[in-house]
Amino acid sequence: MAYLSTSDLRADAIVITAPGGPEVLRWTEGLPLAEPAPDEVLIDVAFAGVNRHDCNQRRRGPTPAHSDVPGLEVSGTVRWAGARAEGLCVGDSVCALIDGGGYATPVVAQSALTFAVPAGLDLQAAAALPEALFTVWHNFFGVAALGPDETVLIHGGTSGVGSLAIQLLRCLGHRVAVTCGTDAKAAEARALGAEAAFNYRTQDWAQAAIDWTQGRGVDVVLDMAGAAHSARNVQVLARRGRLVHLSPGDGADFVAPLRPILAKELRITGSLLRPLPLAEKALLAERLRAVVLPLVAAGRVRPWVSEVFGLAQAARAHTHLESGQAMGKLVLAAMAP
Amino acid sequence: MAYLSTSDLRADAIVITAPGGPEVLRWTEGLPLAEPAPDEVLIDVAFAGVNRHDCNQRRRGPTPAHSDVPGLEVSGTVRWAGARAEGLCVGDSVCALIDGGGYATPVVAQSALTFAVPAGLDLQAAAALPEALFTVWHNFFGVAALGPDETVLIHGGTSGVGSLAIQLLRCLGHRVAVTCGTDAKAAEARALGAEAAFNYRTQDWAQAAIDWTQGRGVDVVLDMAGAAHSARNVQVLARRGRLVHLSPGDGADFVAPLRPILAKELRITGSLLRPLPLAEKALLAERLRAVVLPLVAAGRVRPWVSEVFGLAQAARAHTHLESGQAMGKLVLAAMAP
Repeated sequence: MAYLSTSDLRADAIVITAPGGPEVLRWTEGLPLAEPAPDEVLIDVAFAGVNRHDCNQRRRGPTPAHSDVPGLEVSGTVRWAGARAEGLCVGDSVCALIDGGGYATPVVAQSALTFAVPAGLDLQAAAALPEALFTVWHNFFGVAALGPDETVLIHGGTSGVGSLAIQLLRCLGHRVAVTCGTDAKAAEARALGAEAAFNYRTQDWAQAAIDWTQGRGVDVVLDMAGAAHSARNVQVLARRGRLVHLSPGDGADFVAPLRPILAKELRITGSLLRPLPLAEKALLAERLRAVVLPLVAAGRVRPWVSEVFGLAQAARAHTHLESGQAMGKLVLAAMAP
Repeated sequence: MAYLSTSDLRADAIVITAPGGPEVLRWTEGLPLAEPAPDEVLIDVAFAGVNRHDCNQRRRGPTPAHSDVPGLEVSGTVRWAGARAEGLCVGDSVCALIDGGGYATPVVAQSALTFAVPAGLDLQAAAALPEALFTVWHNFFGVAALGPDETVLIHGGTSGVGSLAIQLLRCLGHRVAVTCGTDAKAAEARALGAEAAFNYRTQDWAQAAIDWTQGRGVDVVLDMAGAAHSARNVQVLARRGRLVHLSPGDGADFVAPLRPILAKELRITGSLLRPLPLAEKALLAERLRAVVLPLVAAGRVRPWVSEVFGLAQAARAHTHLESGQAMGKLVLAAMAP
């Protein structure tokens, strides 16, 4: 609650300058920040998480609706806390889900969406936590209403969301299978706790997933690949199963036969995290604080950071993520490591 | 619980003799019936309801899985009641949901799916009740989980299901809009209680439905036309809206963009009534007895029978239903009227 000077409200940031490839990302110093509100905090960023959303935003280019600075999650140290930023003090180590603008330092974050870094986690790992946690909880327990005995199939088992979902759902007692693009990724997914991991390039993953459930089918499929697997996702689902999409992918239509959707009473659904109203994100944050952060502090759920880039080298991180070679999360270090 | 003679277990019926048009339906006398179980009743059929399902079954032709006698609902008089057919006595006027075999007399029905004819209803109207009641309740309150303040759009407002759904949902406080294929049908739907009725041949019904909700969108769309309106159904839905399909239609794929499904967290879903397990149908029947049959007895929800054909003239009823000209329900009279 200290006084904020004008110089506090200048950020160094990566800016999307045009629609395009990673080359449109430009390092920019001294961008003006809006003054934070009483329920917000100003964070000196240590690390920023990189998400596929950021690459999609970059390809679409600047829009009037959003900040031209990508980035949905950061970790760092509280420089200033508003009068209504409950439980947060200057100097606290925190991580936060933010509505864009994360490839920068400092950033403004909603206190309701800001967590103290769990015990045993460093700031680098903490930056990889918020977006995946909110995404996994909202989609499995909100959108899909996952029940206690239900089985799950996750496409992209070694992605940031996938690797966290495997650990969390196993902790909560669910059987989890995943698909991956290489045998090496499949082995990593098994090491994280996946009971089965199918290589979608070399295996009939749909039949393998059905066999894995003794023919019953999977209760919830989590898909990040847009409409690429629509008909086979419908095929692998059990009666009253849910197909949850996290990404519209390349914009292709969802195409699948209606008869199995009706005969099995399936639900084809999905969500986007970023446009979720703040009040709903705040409710999710309460649930994460109560249920998931203790599991993180206990070491049972850990974000998996596979590579660290300097913030000014965000373009290299995007190139790596879009190569499909990355596993776990990529993070950007605001200060050269 | 009287003794059943072999002659009791012979039925006169309409049989599907081959895949094809209405001409494949053949009147057949003296078909053997399996002996009813203790939780079943034998009904002397007065009227049998005709449903689009029966036409689809006829087009597909005989299958080993089902009786070759079409028909999912009947009304009539109990000739014999099993020892565990609770609350049902010989001579009772009843209507029942059955798993095929309804274009016949007598028929065997599950006592759990058999209702006493509600006060004020004749047997002719009662035959038009079961399939629509189970379908409407299961889809709106089971599959779609319709909430108290939610709005509904029904395609086919003057169909058997549509006409009953309008009345029931209005009774329960929901705002209901419908689409119809002619202005005359739209007027009938309004007379049944639809707040708005759009002619899908002459109007941009999707925009009209959005305007009807002041731009918010509709909470639940009930579709009986298969995939014909997929993309526009997605367009008219409100945030967290549900699109419920009752029919796979002509087998065309469901095709719609994923982005609005994700951005609005829609659920694309549906059901088939006939394959629902008996235990679930029995639970639905309990709910219908408690909530809906009193509304029928009070005259607030009435099945709408528009035409009656003799049972032996079932082919004419199918021709009429498939012409698209029919409104409400068609029923077959087992005895010449």
